[in-house]
Amino acid sequence: MPPSASGAPGAPPAPAEKHRIADVRVTPVAFRDLPLLNTVGVHEPFALRTVVEVVTDSGVHGLGESYGDLPHLRRLEEAGRHLVGLDVFDVNGLLRAVTASLADDSGEGGHGMGGMVMTSAAADRVVSPFEVAALDLQGKIVGRPVSDLLGGAVRDRVAYSAYLFYKWAGHPGQDEDEWGAALDPDGLVRQARRVVDAYGFTAIKLKGGVFAPDEEVEAIRALRAAFPRHPLRLDPNTAWTVATSIEVGRALDGVLEYLEDPTPGIGGMARVAREVSMPLATNMCVVAFDHLPPAVRAEAVQVVLSDHHFWGGLRRSQLLGGICRTFGMGLSMHSNSHLGISLAAMTHLAAATPNLDYACDTHWPWKDPADDVIVPGALTFRDGAVAVPAGPGLGVELDRDALARLHRQYVDCGIRERDDTGYMRRFEPAFDPACPRW
Amino acid sequence: MPPSASGAPGAPPAPAEKHRIADVRVTPVAFRDLPLLNTVGVHEPFALRTVVEVVTDSGVHGLGESYGDLPHLRRLEEAGRHLVGLDVFDVNGLLRAVTASLADDSGEGGHGMGGMVMTSAAADRVVSPFEVAALDLQGKIVGRPVSDLLGGAVRDRVAYSAYLFYKWAGHPGQDEDEWGAALDPDGLVRQARRVVDAYGFTAIKLKGGVFAPDEEVEAIRALRAAFPRHPLRLDPNTAWTVATSIEVGRALDGVLEYLEDPTPGIGGMARVAREVSMPLATNMCVVAFDHLPPAVRAEAVQVVLSDHHFWGGLRRSQLLGGICRTFGMGLSMHSNSHLGISLAAMTHLAAATPNLDYACDTHWPWKDPADDVIVPGALTFRDGAVAVPAGPGLGVELDRDALARLHRQYVDCGIRERDDTGYMRRFEPAFDPACPRW
Ligand SMILES: [Mg+2]
Ligand SMILES: [Mg+2]
Repeated sequence: MPPSASGAPGAPPAPAEKHRIADVRVTPVAFRDLPLLNTVGVHEPFALRTVVEVVTDSGVHGLGESYGDLPHLRRLEEAGRHLVGLDVFDVNGLLRAVTASLADDSGEGGHGMGGMVMTSAAADRVVSPFEVAALDLQGKIVGRPVSDLLGGAVRDRVAYSAYLFYKWAGHPGQDEDEWGAALDPDGLVRQARRVVDAYGFTAIKLKGGVFAPDEEVEAIRALRAAFPRHPLRLDPNTAWTVATSIEVGRALDGVLEYLEDPTPGIGGMARVAREVSMPLATNMCVVAFDHLPPAVRAEAVQVVLSDHHFWGGLRRSQLLGGICRTFGMGLSMHSNSHLGISLAAMTHLAAATPNLDYACDTHWPWKDPADDVIVPGALTFRDGAVAVPAGPGLGVELDRDALARLHRQYVDCGIRERDDTGYMRRFEPAFDPACPRW
Repeated sequence: MPPSASGAPGAPPAPAEKHRIADVRVTPVAFRDLPLLNTVGVHEPFALRTVVEVVTDSGVHGLGESYGDLPHLRRLEEAGRHLVGLDVFDVNGLLRAVTASLADDSGEGGHGMGGMVMTSAAADRVVSPFEVAALDLQGKIVGRPVSDLLGGAVRDRVAYSAYLFYKWAGHPGQDEDEWGAALDPDGLVRQARRVVDAYGFTAIKLKGGVFAPDEEVEAIRALRAAFPRHPLRLDPNTAWTVATSIEVGRALDGVLEYLEDPTPGIGGMARVAREVSMPLATNMCVVAFDHLPPAVRAEAVQVVLSDHHFWGGLRRSQLLGGICRTFGMGLSMHSNSHLGISLAAMTHLAAATPNLDYACDTHWPWKDPADDVIVPGALTFRDGAVAVPAGPGLGVELDRDALARLHRQYVDCGIRERDDTGYMRRFEPAFDPACPRW
């Protein structure tokens, strides 16, 4: 007799209780933004985001946050309809359902990143806030912080970088804002002092690609003189040719922690990487899993800036982290303008990802503290770092009055797609955002 | 005034309750095994495993299973002492603690895989049963199956393959066993019929490297004739030169689903891969994360056989899965002789890993159903697949009487390290396990 294929009879244990998605609420919001300059233009007076609430049949609420551009908002709404009935532990099911919701979608438009990240995977962008909300729900249901669900925090505080921008004194037609102008090295050093004093940041990043490379090299040198021990980064968003990138890289030899996206494309980055001493970082030529094999093959980048908003959520961002570690690349974190739900998610992710040990980017200081959708107090900076929330889930709570107010701002501001270039052209009609430009 | 770095005051939510590891029990066991032939010798009368129990201060028990070779057992014991006090959600902390426990360890010996997988990472081998036990505990604490903690089951049944072996009729000096001899194509077809009839397997793998390649090609052809629709695999465990591998690969063009480890090393596999039509699979030249970059660079393998016992547990095996998907490699699953705790872990892992869609290997049919440490009934085969346990954690329960009995067998059998070659040489003193041999 062959051995029996079945074990002895015995009642299997009862299936675990499910918490199924009963309702998905997708709310576009706007918050005031400052005239921050980048290579494709200037930030408009309001930044857009979408707040996602996922409610289970057991009455638990989970939160996620994503881009607010209208085509993306419509995709989130459509995806939300596909998620009702799914168990909140079924993260694989979320991605399947979102992919199905995009079956008839061209994927065009609404990337929400101001024209600077165009080739990320649509399903990964759309699933992200729902995955974050599912993990928030899981954490609330089991009484654990999201970082525990991601493998456990390896650090109890997550360091962020001071994110400097060239900026105008104020939006045209408005009063000068509280930050004032930063259009030269002195202005940037003043801005850096202010933000480092207020937040304690221990690393500094300059958004470049705004002025001629020589001027930006001078700005970095001025920052180095003023902050001799802060790691410094420069990110011109592919504004430079390969030759210019190599020139700048050599000029800043020994000065930069990393040089971020000096030139477009994996091929161009690889050519620069062979000629400069510092690591090259990217959130532009490697923004989807499909980009990793060619980037690895070409040895194009040494640091990948993860961003759970376009890498498919927190777990898939951890997969990116594991790939970077396996293939000998560093891991940092990218940010767009964001609210507190995203800051909480970014902090849990960075806390539970061992090799995410660069200070992460955040636009947080540019946001008015009064403009948020979460109850204040959960996320505070000390010495440039945010303590990982220890409560269940993301550890942040939705403030419904604030959500209503920021939604009203969205309705009233009239902006429906981020357009840094269009806004710039209102004041400089000849502005040309072509990259590379220098 | 700069914006305040702190939000408005507000008491942070209370930290989540911890479940800390209070006790770790490591028990070597032995179970009867049959004289299965492979390229380095023959299975001994007993196979060794280690059962790991992790107990929390809240009194919850979690289970893991690993190799039983003495040096590995000692490492598990030492590692267990380093884990007391850790929170069971701190999977990152487990790996850190295990790595620390190995600081003074040479890493030599006790790989537990019969001399066939020598270069896996010691920390990943040692942490594996503890990580599985931690996930079992997490699942029990939150009332969810392990597959839910791994992202949710994408399939409710996991397909396994019929794992055929050349074998002697019985252990020398013992009666013929219930399977009888399989030393030629007819014997293998008989064996295949029996195991396919009993379990319903829909894929078939032959462990080769035992007889001359021509004979094994004939065996595969006989299996193809007898099972025209079953995908077939052949695994000679690097018994062949590159030239022989190419010859066999060409002879079996269109017949094999994949050819597993025909020849040693990433370089050798790459040379074979360029010349044969079927995918090459491996659990020998890519057995640690460090092996992935050179294997990818060389395009050496098209399928990686994961195995959570040496890839660092279930979550790190999912990372391997994500890497395979990203870099365009298939994902299957390797098995050594194992008990029910491992079958449960393998089933949860495969269920929650979308691209683990090959039928997985298992030695399960070769084990006497009476020889196990779990309460029977949780894991049964139907149509070649095991239903994913739906209860909390792994969904299997330790049978303490059975554990005591299998531990007694361990004590009595006298085997302390798997030695297929030494056992073979008792009967064929001139046996030479060198690879490649043909
Ligand atoms: Mg950037
Ligand atoms: Mg094998």
